[in-house]
Amino acid sequence: MPFFQRAALAVAFTLLAVNTSNAQTPAPAALPDPAATSVDALGWMKGFPPPPDKQITFDNPVGGVFPRTRWSFSHVRETVPTANVWRGSGAASPLPSAPRNDIEAVTFKPLGSAGSEETVTFAQMIPRTYTDGILVMHRGRVVYEKYFGALTPERPHIAMSVTKSFVGTLAAILADEGKLDPSAPVTKYLPELKDTAYGDATVRQVMDMTIGVHYSENYADPKAEIWDYARAGGMLTQGPNYTGPKSFYEFLATLKKEGAHDAAFAYKTVNAEVLAWILRRASNQSLADLLSEKIWRRIGAEQDAYFMVDRIGTESGGGGLNTVLRDIARFGETMRNGGRAPNGQQVIAKAVVEDIQRGGDPAKFAKAGYALLPGWSYRNMWWVSHNPHGAYMARGIHGQSIYVDPKAEMVIVRYAAHPVAASAGNDPLTLPAFQAVAEALMARP
Amino acid sequence: MPFFQRAALAVAFTLLAVNTSNAQTPAPAALPDPAATSVDALGWMKGFPPPPDKQITFDNPVGGVFPRTRWSFSHVRETVPTANVWRGSGAASPLPSAPRNDIEAVTFKPLGSAGSEETVTFAQMIPRTYTDGILVMHRGRVVYEKYFGALTPERPHIAMSVTKSFVGTLAAILADEGKLDPSAPVTKYLPELKDTAYGDATVRQVMDMTIGVHYSENYADPKAEIWDYARAGGMLTQGPNYTGPKSFYEFLATLKKEGAHDAAFAYKTVNAEVLAWILRRASNQSLADLLSEKIWRRIGAEQDAYFMVDRIGTESGGGGLNTVLRDIARFGETMRNGGRAPNGQQVIAKAVVEDIQRGGDPAKFAKAGYALLPGWSYRNMWWVSHNPHGAYMARGIHGQSIYVDPKAEMVIVRYAAHPVAASAGNDPLTLPAFQAVAEALMARP
Repeated sequence: MPFFQRAALAVAFTLLAVNTSNAQTPAPAALPDPAATSVDALGWMKGFPPPPDKQITFDNPVGGVFPRTRWSFSHVRETVPTANVWRGSGAASPLPSAPRNDIEAVTFKPLGSAGSEETVTFAQMIPRTYTDGILVMHRGRVVYEKYFGALTPERPHIAMSVTKSFVGTLAAILADEGKLDPSAPVTKYLPELKDTAYGDATVRQVMDMTIGVHYSENYADPKAEIWDYARAGGMLTQGPNYTGPKSFYEFLATLKKEGAHDAAFAYKTVNAEVLAWILRRASNQSLADLLSEKIWRRIGAEQDAYFMVDRIGTESGGGGLNTVLRDIARFGETMRNGGRAPNGQQVIAKAVVEDIQRGGDPAKFAKAGYALLPGWSYRNMWWVSHNPHGAYMARGIHGQSIYVDPKAEMVIVRYAAHPVAASAGNDPLTLPAFQAVAEALMARP
Repeated sequence: MPFFQRAALAVAFTLLAVNTSNAQTPAPAALPDPAATSVDALGWMKGFPPPPDKQITFDNPVGGVFPRTRWSFSHVRETVPTANVWRGSGAASPLPSAPRNDIEAVTFKPLGSAGSEETVTFAQMIPRTYTDGILVMHRGRVVYEKYFGALTPERPHIAMSVTKSFVGTLAAILADEGKLDPSAPVTKYLPELKDTAYGDATVRQVMDMTIGVHYSENYADPKAEIWDYARAGGMLTQGPNYTGPKSFYEFLATLKKEGAHDAAFAYKTVNAEVLAWILRRASNQSLADLLSEKIWRRIGAEQDAYFMVDRIGTESGGGGLNTVLRDIARFGETMRNGGRAPNGQQVIAKAVVEDIQRGGDPAKFAKAGYALLPGWSYRNMWWVSHNPHGAYMARGIHGQSIYVDPKAEMVIVRYAAHPVAASAGNDPLTLPAFQAVAEALMARP
């Protein structure tokens, strides 16, 4: 995403070399002080004009690097072109409030801290993972909701790869409606990908990211294809002498096969872009209009959402969605309720939700080597824990997440600007925190 | 505006050289066939991806030229960065419907057609002025509402210089609240303009555009300062070797005095940008937030609006606002009702509205030489007709308008993509059409 990939790059270079797909827990000592890097502490973009050293712009090479991301993740549309996701004209669905500030005192042990005496509280986790906003729902009521720095209840935040779970859900919805055939070859919808990695792949393999494609998402490698992708999509400046692909479509047509399909889960953002393209062809709608029709208008979203777009207006299905926190809470709650939205309407078919909850093949997932996610799987672009609570997640770099815990009847949504792009920067604190809050809410409902 | 100025330039070069401030009526024969240039006829941006010759992009030199504007005026945010104007979280104010399709048959004589037998109907005026959407309110009810081509009820359209009337109204509101002193020197709020044309000007002179400043808005002259303004504001591509001002603020600081202040009305977009800057300093809010707080949330707007912004996020107060048609109808109706919104609330002080209705000094206006606007004046960035109905307008290039007729209890709002930038392209048909409809509604209420 525009500066966001750049942010990740800079962090990877200067702080610790992490690979998103297979990272180790960073040493907490290496991280900057969250309080000292808050928007309020640093004063980005205040004043008319802001002082030159407090300005954040798209074309400035350091514009999106942490800690500037603590401002820019909540102001994406002010720096790049976007497409609106209309909420419709009806009333927002209710999110009744029932505060439970006792959950701030819930304690847990960080992942990977075996042998240490360290315990952390939910309240401590929040700043330590550079949270911009967090909301906890239990049994359909908002028990906790806090915003920090640049984020406010009515301001959309970049969802990063949480976007992918919307795209995967839309694909499952179209399949359920008979408008998309997961078993069909990708080329049924995208004949122009015949000579690419996707020439002999199925839609289902794209939906579950078991595609063998030469494409590196290693943020620590400046030659990784993730940067070509970002430049093609207008997320990074192309520069005056740029001769590469100038849109997502052009970039996707360059991808070559590597290895076999269907052998292992391999997390690659381009699969979400290919799936988004398939959705457009299958529905004859833009991704923004499709998301509006199938989900945003139906769940009773309270604000419009928006996508970042490339120079010909193509939405980024890999990471370009921006929403208010309360609306991804509504979506998470809809998933938790088997497709029934907070307004009481069945807005996603129960079979679609159940298929996601059931998850994918843990054996294929295990081959990707996520040390912090043992036994998990990936299905329709959701991360499925297969833990005793049946929890599953939408996850985006720098700490974006929707965490659905069916057994605890709990949904936690979080937007953040963690300096480490990889989920490994957040998971050691957030995953056990979410589990501990779930147990606390079950014990004291 | 991004491509919009460029559109105007291209039209000026290829069709007829018009000067916005003092144009003659173009010969109708010189205009392209409206039906043949509609979005539906030409098929812009359809398909995934659209065919190369049907793509509209910001960086393509012909991207915004008519007839592409019939698409792009309704898709501005998909090509440039923008700032949201939040509508708030309440219900939209009601706009009850009472269709009066009989007004389509209302006839009138075009301005400047004296001696000719030509009569035109309201229905004929609509396509002949390249209307994208038009809405007529009478006594608080919507009697006519139509959309064409790319515009839909929920899609914002660029308001062009209709923006200025919002900025002028905001200034009058802040003055009424005692937060802005119109009699103060501009430098009270903007000391950095000390050595510019504004160094010895008052806020009132800026509000009424009686500033002596060297700045040409002649779209037919590629060296006119309007293009420097557009490049500084990110509305035109700056190019790799650009060394000029990189924000509105930097550009405004370059403006030199020419002639005297307070002697004559001189329509110059930079005055609206200076006034927007003054508003930010006086309110300590961004223009988007100020418009949201003082007008958008109060009138019960049904959709968020948005501003185009420069590279440091500064809204264009001169022409960057985008809204849905129904929301400028609500604003026009609020003005017609002396500041009372369709939800029944007094949302703008009556004195503010009355001051605008009363108008400015017609003698100063006459010096600007608008042949089609005899006896008019300009006040708080509104155009005041001083006709027997007391009608006044917000006006933007290519045909954008809010027309308030207090005596007829009528408001007409219109968004358009006329190939001619200057109002002279629209006025000969639209001004007598609005007057004829007003008379018809008064005669048969």
